[in-house]
Amino acid sequence: MLEQLKQEVLEANLDLPRYNLVTFTWGNVSGIDREQGLVVIKPSGVEYDKLRLDDMVVLDLEGNIVEGSYRPSSDTATHLALYKAFPNIGGIVHTHSPWATGWAQAGRGIPALGTTHADYYYGEIPCTRAMTEEEIKGAYELETGNVIIETFKDLDPDRIPGVLVHCHAPFNWGKDAHNAVHNAVVLEEVAKMATQSYQLNPNLQPMSQHLLDRHFLRKHGANAYYGQS
Amino acid sequence: MLEQLKQEVLEANLDLPRYNLVTFTWGNVSGIDREQGLVVIKPSGVEYDKLRLDDMVVLDLEGNIVEGSYRPSSDTATHLALYKAFPNIGGIVHTHSPWATGWAQAGRGIPALGTTHADYYYGEIPCTRAMTEEEIKGAYELETGNVIIETFKDLDPDRIPGVLVHCHAPFNWGKDAHNAVHNAVVLEEVAKMATQSYQLNPNLQPMSQHLLDRHFLRKHGANAYYGQS
Amino acid sequence: MLEQLKQEVLEANLDLPRYNLVTFTWGNVSGIDREQGLVVIKPSGVEYDKLRLDDMVVLDLEGNIVEGSYRPSSDTATHLALYKAFPNIGGIVHTHSPWATGWAQAGRGIPALGTTHADYYYGEIPCTRAMTEEEIKGAYELETGNVIIETFKDLDPDRIPGVLVHCHAPFNWGKDAHNAVHNAVVLEEVAKMATQSYQLNPNLQPMSQHLLDRHFLRKHGANAYYGQS
Amino acid sequence: MLEQLKQEVLEANLDLPRYNLVTFTWGNVSGIDREQGLVVIKPSGVEYDKLRLDDMVVLDLEGNIVEGSYRPSSDTATHLALYKAFPNIGGIVHTHSPWATGWAQAGRGIPALGTTHADYYYGEIPCTRAMTEEEIKGAYELETGNVIIETFKDLDPDRIPGVLVHCHAPFNWGKDAHNAVHNAVVLEEVAKMATQSYQLNPNLQPMSQHLLDRHFLRKHGANAYYGQS
Repeated sequence: MLEQLKQEVLEANLDLPRYNLVTFTWGNVSGIDREQGLVVIKPSGVEYDKLRLDDMVVLDLEGNIVEGSYRPSSDTATHLALYKAFPNIGGIVHTHSPWATGWAQAGRGIPALGTTHADYYYGEIPCTRAMTEEEIKGAYELETGNVIIETFKDLDPDRIPGVLVHCHAPFNWGKDAHNAVHNAVVLEEVAKMATQSYQLNPNLQPMSQHLLDRHFLRKHGANAYYGQS
Repeated sequence: MLEQLKQEVLEANLDLPRYNLVTFTWGNVSGIDREQGLVVIKPSGVEYDKLRLDDMVVLDLEGNIVEGSYRPSSDTATHLALYKAFPNIGGIVHTHSPWATGWAQAGRGIPALGTTHADYYYGEIPCTRAMTEEEIKGAYELETGNVIIETFKDLDPDRIPGVLVHCHAPFNWGKDAHNAVHNAVVLEEVAKMATQSYQLNPNLQPMSQHLLDRHFLRKHGANAYYGQS
Repeated sequence: MLEQLKQEVLEANLDLPRYNLVTFTWGNVSGIDREQGLVVIKPSGVEYDKLRLDDMVVLDLEGNIVEGSYRPSSDTATHLALYKAFPNIGGIVHTHSPWATGWAQAGRGIPALGTTHADYYYGEIPCTRAMTEEEIKGAYELETGNVIIETFKDLDPDRIPGVLVHCHAPFNWGKDAHNAVHNAVVLEEVAKMATQSYQLNPNLQPMSQHLLDRHFLRKHGANAYYGQS
Repeated sequence: MLEQLKQEVLEANLDLPRYNLVTFTWGNVSGIDREQGLVVIKPSGVEYDKLRLDDMVVLDLEGNIVEGSYRPSSDTATHLALYKAFPNIGGIVHTHSPWATGWAQAGRGIPALGTTHADYYYGEIPCTRAMTEEEIKGAYELETGNVIIETFKDLDPDRIPGVLVHCHAPFNWGKDAHNAVHNAVVLEEVAKMATQSYQLNPNLQPMSQHLLDRHFLRKHGANAYYGQS
């Protein structure tokens, strides 16, 4: 079942080492079939160079395994929470990519400093608040999803397709698994550039709203004019 | 038409991923035939590993498409403005190479700190002023070219073959497309070294004018003695 | 003798250049057969691309060579001291991996700043005190082992599988040679992320104990639920 | 003539891109036959992937070309000055390797911070003083050699096989061309580690003399015990 989605999710997972976003097994990608309400996700702890199509795990949105002989990613509950809260997203990726994780560990969101950022993220890439003792000791992975959702209560996840979880690492999403990984690559590049810019000017302010608008809307929405129509 | 120029521009575009100057499609190279007044440029948003000779777009200096089935790079108006203002240049490249972009986002020009810089750039690589709301909301890409030209009103583009656009990224040029990319590689290397030097000494001053003269003129102009004559 | 252990130790040594942990011959891995009380270690100064199974040196825990025609690693006495003091470890690795060495040279332990760290190290990765003139002029490599052991007098080496030796570089260990190298890769990644986080926030505090507990115990111990059981 | 030396110098030059020490043609290696008083050096501005044995230039110590159809490296006069002043060296290399160049541009020598440094350099790797207007406008490359020699008036070039030229880049040497490149690789690695250590602790002091002695003398001199005898 869901052979095409499983193939897409497998390929998106294999893109993580290809783009140098993961060390060992520190990452996972999922994709969703919205009509059937089923999610395909990487199995937990399986090495990328051994990952095959049939290793993918299929779950419903309540976390019941529908197909697959492996245990799903330990971060599955986070993915499911996000799919339920963000209705337009079709894929989710979690990595510990180092520059973005540097920001997450510092507890700082990445302000929009330039057009590279603005081409993909319509404003600061936020960092969640620290999770509470209760959240950490409770249903931790679900609560990780909840604190992301709380962070986006006044933000549009379709225009800011990623987040830094405090003292942890980034989650990204997109219209499908491939696009989520694309956004994760951009985040890592933007995080690297922003670290370098702050090194050169620790008091740097975000870019102007006009420039942010121009670049984001040049690539997204009804009046986009980047690429081939 | 312009088969040789198209070949040169194609190869120069393919050099961008080869030299690690671009992520995804974040860059474009053009070349000009000055006699015919025609420019060859990369199509917008096409991935480098799929780019072929026939994908190149040929335009006149007013931006009219003369040949090609694709839409040209979204930065085309910037390229055309520079070709008109800087009569000796034969190629232009735009990238978001990360170290140079770090400086552009910090809003700082890169001072000449050492001979690596001086071998190619005869003084600070400037950063443009921030663009105004009117420029950003108007003919943005043309205005990007105009703010670069304004930045060079007292500078010689033949001796400083590159610029940082404020909160955006670098543009480079050269005697042809290949040379423009060469200068972009140098810029990225110089930007990296300068970031590291400022980390070691935040109050660093530019190199002496004598040493700058010696190195630039050792490689450029009538008395150059580097390389094979 | 010990053909399987020699094979494991050879492969673990060859993983050092593969994971970019060493320049030239700056590293060594050993493994122990606890039943026989014999240690297999890399020969001193032999280049990785010339290293063969029969080059491995077999010693007893007193440092007597039992098999092998080469002189063992100059750091052998450090390895032997650690095997005697830490009864559960089965492999040891020493590298000069650059980010971790940056911390060792700065004389600072790496605080637990995020879950990447917490997944493998149950608290700060400590830096030893500076060694004394007597220790340095005496049985230096043995004393290097002793100062590591002293550093762990109130720490559990099974839960913090690595250390930074002051003004020197890291040592890591694990349940076998392969696992020791795995922990060395993690250390280098964690060191890189921590350097970047401190650059963004020089006054950064360690992560919460709750989050540290959750992540370490998610992967280790009786209630671990990461990976496939 | 000098076929073996030319082969060694060619291979040492080709090692520069292999070890990521050069961009484009920014580097050169030479070797000397002390008995014949002849130096073999890379031709100026020739790309590494086109470099062949017969392109090597043979000169005497006064700079007269003895063999070769190309113009020698523009830095030849620096090499010759060093061969005359430092009687034990057999090879010299010049690069603009980025981390070391970062220190040269900052005008700072690299203090001995750890054993990686101490294994190869017996103390701080010095940075020359800034060259004067007269030196720069005069026989610049010869004067570059002279300012290096001045820097070593109280230092032993056999125990500190490299230098940073102020606002320029490193020169390294060794017992032969291969060894000189080896020392250049070490310098770049040591420069990188030192930059990172200073980022973590800007007030860092050099390592203890005892530890410096121990590591340098473990690898060098009559009582060395590293490697195979």
